[in-house]
Amino acid sequence: MPRKVGDRMGLIIGSRPGEVAVHDNTTLNIYQGVHIALGLRPDRKVIVVAADEFPTDRFVVEGIAHDLGLTVRPLTADVDLSDVAVVVRSVIDYRTAELCDVAGFTAQARAQGAMVLWDLSHTAGAIEFDVHALGVELAVGCSYKFLNGGPGAPAWTFVAQQLQSHIQQPIKGWFAQKDQFAMEKPFAPHDDIRRVLLGTPNMLSLVAAEEGIALSGRAGMPAIAKKGQALTKFGIDVIDHFGLTTSTPRDATKRGCHLAVHHPNAPQLVKDLAAQFKVIADVRPPDIVRLGLSPLTTRFTDIWDGLEKLSRLINQ
Amino acid sequence: MPRKVGDRMGLIIGSRPGEVAVHDNTTLNIYQGVHIALGLRPDRKVIVVAADEFPTDRFVVEGIAHDLGLTVRPLTADVDLSDVAVVVRSVIDYRTAELCDVAGFTAQARAQGAMVLWDLSHTAGAIEFDVHALGVELAVGCSYKFLNGGPGAPAWTFVAQQLQSHIQQPIKGWFAQKDQFAMEKPFAPHDDIRRVLLGTPNMLSLVAAEEGIALSGRAGMPAIAKKGQALTKFGIDVIDHFGLTTSTPRDATKRGCHLAVHHPNAPQLVKDLAAQFKVIADVRPPDIVRLGLSPLTTRFTDIWDGLEKLSRLINQ
Repeated sequence: MPRKVGDRMGLIIGSRPGEVAVHDNTTLNIYQGVHIALGLRPDRKVIVVAADEFPTDRFVVEGIAHDLGLTVRPLTADVDLSDVAVVVRSVIDYRTAELCDVAGFTAQARAQGAMVLWDLSHTAGAIEFDVHALGVELAVGCSYKFLNGGPGAPAWTFVAQQLQSHIQQPIKGWFAQKDQFAMEKPFAPHDDIRRVLLGTPNMLSLVAAEEGIALSGRAGMPAIAKKGQALTKFGIDVIDHFGLTTSTPRDATKRGCHLAVHHPNAPQLVKDLAAQFKVIADVRPPDIVRLGLSPLTTRFTDIWDGLEKLSRLINQ
Repeated sequence: MPRKVGDRMGLIIGSRPGEVAVHDNTTLNIYQGVHIALGLRPDRKVIVVAADEFPTDRFVVEGIAHDLGLTVRPLTADVDLSDVAVVVRSVIDYRTAELCDVAGFTAQARAQGAMVLWDLSHTAGAIEFDVHALGVELAVGCSYKFLNGGPGAPAWTFVAQQLQSHIQQPIKGWFAQKDQFAMEKPFAPHDDIRRVLLGTPNMLSLVAAEEGIALSGRAGMPAIAKKGQALTKFGIDVIDHFGLTTSTPRDATKRGCHLAVHHPNAPQLVKDLAAQFKVIADVRPPDIVRLGLSPLTTRFTDIWDGLEKLSRLINQ
């Protein structure tokens, strides 16, 4: 089931059958992904992550570095990757929705011998993406929002086929084992994507995830991405109309599917939006009101209504 | 939600509010539990696990020992625990249903300075159990069968209150962090059971688990355990009636809620039971047909029917 649902990710991220397992949560998948990359670069002792990366990515990296005595180097424009085992990086910034140069950065890392573990949590289902065209070998993501899964929907791991038989990850569970009930025998995992599995896959979630992912697959990422760009363009126009401030890129090809509105009272505004108007936004410290626009379900009128309410709260 | 559902485990295993988190799967919880115990015994380099322990427990232990350069010592009757950090042990044998001496073994380990991580997967919801009365400080288990959860239902971790503020586990996720979205700040986890959380809790599963656990709580473990003993006694009588062989203890106070029937053709018998009669049993190598009897849902007539079919297959 983790592989069957994983195969449906092909229409979303360009993966091939057998390259994705849908399982557990993103935090865990990042943990495994970092260990997988470290195992592929055993002579390197540095992990790179941005100081303002999504918190769980950063915490996981810092925890692994602490436990294994590795160094964490902040991601900067001129960061040296020549001694780096793995970079953990989000394709789309979780605050501003800014899209980074995936192909360029992956090629730069590869040239310097570093792996990149891409976090596609705000990417898969929001924009068009093709792991193979971009040179991506290792990626994780959630199916929470843009893949219609809701809170706690299972995450997924992509491992390019050519790496699968080499990888090791630290949590050796019976669902990775060739013969699950083999007694008094050592751990001998499958040679494929099942190497990332641990315990019993969560069936309730997988059944829901299968349908959620299939829904995006049927609608088609080109159409979804096009509506996403139109939604965010409309949102930026409305932000301008109300005189609000955004850091979300104005170039549609450089952004994902959410909007960042800056205001010093962001935390209170998010609370008031929910309490007074049932508009659910997220606060992103220090000063961002983040509005997620999921192309399959968000309407243009929702964007107008939400931003009109936000503007009213700011000006009252 | 992981804590709210966890509190419902009090009626099942005698834990106090705030001592259980329901989250992720048992394999992961074992992984975390072993690391927690290792962190509490930093000067010890040995993990003990039985050579015939449930596979995922054994694989996880072997994986951790390999990665950290620790030694795995097999659990034997006279095992020396004086240099052992942690013993991973199932309360009820997953094949025979034999119940071990939890209080005695925990006391013995404590006297020698070793932690015990108890696996209650075949225990919680099957027999009466009281973590505090038995001296248990660290335990994990599933909610799959005896807590009515079905495949992939979330697992749970019990950490005795007095240990919680000291524990460390390797997967530092944002759901353990006091301020989830704190930027450019280090990981600073809660001081309570939330230290074991990783990513977004699986809401679909938790909602189902809450009801499943509550159901056992409402029925009451004394009544459930009493029916479990009656079911297994009846099962053993039927096994005797058909001249079959079992290793499940005949003393009702020494067994859990499943039956082990030995036969050299066990793997084929389990297949045939399912294909011909829709009787779902498990094969436990090398020669066990295992019949799970969940007290809340299994009827006496189910046991007769299943064993009569098994006997028919064996004698045909």
